[in-house]
Amino acid sequence: MNIINGNVTSPKGFKAAGNAVGIKKNKNDGNAGPFESKKDMAVIVSEKPCTAAGCFTTNVVKAAPVLWDMKAVGNKITGIVANSGNANACTGHQGLEDTEATAEKLASLTGIKAENILVCSTGVIGVNLPMDIISKGVESTYSLIGEGYDKGLSAAEAIMTTDTRSKTAAVTVDIGGKTVTIGGMAKGSGMINPNMATMLCFITTDCAVSKSLLDKALKSCVRDSFNMICVDGDMSTNDTVLCIANGMAENTEITEENADFDKFSKALYYVTKKLAIDCADDGEGATKLIEANVKGAADEEQARKIALSVVSSNLLKAAIFGEDANWGRVLCAMGYSGAEFDPMAVTIEFRSEKGIIKLMDNGTPIVFDEEKAAEILLEHNIFIDMYLSEGKGKATAWGCDLTYDYVKINGDYRS
Amino acid sequence: MNIINGNVTSPKGFKAAGNAVGIKKNKNDGNAGPFESKKDMAVIVSEKPCTAAGCFTTNVVKAAPVLWDMKAVGNKITGIVANSGNANACTGHQGLEDTEATAEKLASLTGIKAENILVCSTGVIGVNLPMDIISKGVESTYSLIGEGYDKGLSAAEAIMTTDTRSKTAAVTVDIGGKTVTIGGMAKGSGMINPNMATMLCFITTDCAVSKSLLDKALKSCVRDSFNMICVDGDMSTNDTVLCIANGMAENTEITEENADFDKFSKALYYVTKKLAIDCADDGEGATKLIEANVKGAADEEQARKIALSVVSSNLLKAAIFGEDANWGRVLCAMGYSGAEFDPMAVTIEFRSEKGIIKLMDNGTPIVFDEEKAAEILLEHNIFIDMYLSEGKGKATAWGCDLTYDYVKINGDYRS
Repeated sequence: MNIINGNVTSPKGFKAAGNAVGIKKNKNDGNAGPFESKKDMAVIVSEKPCTAAGCFTTNVVKAAPVLWDMKAVGNKITGIVANSGNANACTGHQGLEDTEATAEKLASLTGIKAENILVCSTGVIGVNLPMDIISKGVESTYSLIGEGYDKGLSAAEAIMTTDTRSKTAAVTVDIGGKTVTIGGMAKGSGMINPNMATMLCFITTDCAVSKSLLDKALKSCVRDSFNMICVDGDMSTNDTVLCIANGMAENTEITEENADFDKFSKALYYVTKKLAIDCADDGEGATKLIEANVKGAADEEQARKIALSVVSSNLLKAAIFGEDANWGRVLCAMGYSGAEFDPMAVTIEFRSEKGIIKLMDNGTPIVFDEEKAAEILLEHNIFIDMYLSEGKGKATAWGCDLTYDYVKINGDYRS
Repeated sequence: MNIINGNVTSPKGFKAAGNAVGIKKNKNDGNAGPFESKKDMAVIVSEKPCTAAGCFTTNVVKAAPVLWDMKAVGNKITGIVANSGNANACTGHQGLEDTEATAEKLASLTGIKAENILVCSTGVIGVNLPMDIISKGVESTYSLIGEGYDKGLSAAEAIMTTDTRSKTAAVTVDIGGKTVTIGGMAKGSGMINPNMATMLCFITTDCAVSKSLLDKALKSCVRDSFNMICVDGDMSTNDTVLCIANGMAENTEITEENADFDKFSKALYYVTKKLAIDCADDGEGATKLIEANVKGAADEEQARKIALSVVSSNLLKAAIFGEDANWGRVLCAMGYSGAEFDPMAVTIEFRSEKGIIKLMDNGTPIVFDEEKAAEILLEHNIFIDMYLSEGKGKATAWGCDLTYDYVKINGDYRS
């Protein structure tokens, strides 16, 4: 597997564009924040129809485009249209009609049916889409589509809300003598929680792979990437990860769980993990990336619960912002995770590029060097390593610190 | 039932004291924050042995005094000793010994056994108790105990950590021709979450009531009060609500679920609810109290989930701080609560002393008067009313807004 400098346009046969169509400009539709790109619409199209897979929010309240995509992902897909600035969530029956009209618009331009188009929206909740702007926007954005890195980057910028930077990733992998490419883009950065977030992620690949195995690979990758990050504990109405595969790499189609499938899955995991960590790292107001590693839990499920509980703790997140080695909050968050374990057999270490420091050893607090701890916590990437004695379960979760800027950004998001 | 200006010394036969013994002064043991009382030890004693009931944290990691009290609450209780400034949590085997030594100290002064003493601690996690200070402190605090309002208030001040004010409540109720009094005190104010928090609450009563019915009444009251508040989603290692009853009101002992039991339960609920709301209102950094009311959920359990999810949402809490009528975040938090409901049948209103405003009506967003919404949200007490169409389940939860000060207080708690 080779990591390349690419995005959704890297695999063969994919074109994209990002564009500023005026959704964010419209005062009534809200403006996402101080950092956002002014671009607010992205289109991705494939030269050939794609097999598609999707993972969606488990929130009972699902935005209209999520309901659309959950159905459409069973069809062959030729295009994706995404807007930022308005989530088309909590928008009643009108919201469903607007999503369909958006799909129809792109379908009419590409000469296919609406059911072959996927639609995503992100931004303010509870305001109907400005359909005149959307309709003209799909047209103008489609007119800009093209191949190459810059077009894909522009699309990645167009899905940003309070993100401070665009997020892309790409890899190539040799499958049966053919070079298969996987490219992706994602946006965060608030409402980020297990089972995804106001998280949109679009992955393209030229791999030939069956629908059922694409589903399986994506589900497994999302479980260990997007479902293991937390910014604020709020699970969005719009979370969507989509992967579309057009088969243009001309590898022998992957139809069983063989070595090719493993290679493809690993490459796909790299892309999802990279994008998920980028989302945690760019969490609203974040100044630090936190990686929580659990080893020795009763099983993997218990390890996942513990790791997520730690990166989700407001108290721990605020302590990391304050560069305070308050390890007691780690043990506390482990304790209310829902996992069962013996607190008297827990070891906790904090780690960064500046070194490693043990804070609790087998249930007993260690008198530690506060100066060394402070030096370690000055770094941007903070690792919290937890060792239990229950079994072989291990897991990793990612999060960010809780800062003044998180409150600032979210205290007045709509205005 | 009469609400009186009282506290734990209001019921007959109870004495108390609060004292500054030097736990908070000791740099190594941490200082809880800028607002705290310098007092750090409280003692309550009863003239006659009490029937006792307790509700405790469900965190797997339980502080040493919690483990002690869970056992001791089955015995007749004569005294309670509580310290602030150090939680004696995550303190290994030494922590258990220290709790027992604390109980023994008060027992030796009162001429009873350690097993008849309850012990509570709150403050920094992971640091062993300074036992020389504790031991002398129990002695000096015990020497100060007395009857009357001021002694009880002093005790309430001595259990504060980052609380900005002490929290007390008291009521009298006529039971079988006798005046029964219930008094209480509590402390918050971070790590406040369902199943309690770094929440300590002590309730005294002179009611004659059997152990099993005191257990039952307290459990029911805590379920609808302390278990329905959330400040930051972190469940503490130390959460404890204790109720001790010495029978000195000389009412006929309550031994069955009769009218007397109902009267007693209602009076006890007033005290727990008042103290729980005080804790939410005084949440770390809070500027507003949020009350979330759910009606029409499938059942009470579902209603509770929804109400708690809403007051726990960081995004909603930040929006309330910003006085932003971002009702979409309410629906979103309802949606990930784990409860099942039809989003298309949800009505949401915001309310305060300044009026009421409907934001969503049966799943459809309402175009509302932003100026009126802003005026309503300027108030301190904000009510969020949610109407569903699933059944008759209803519930209320309380929380506070998420502010810069929450981050400030928790970014550097230990130093």
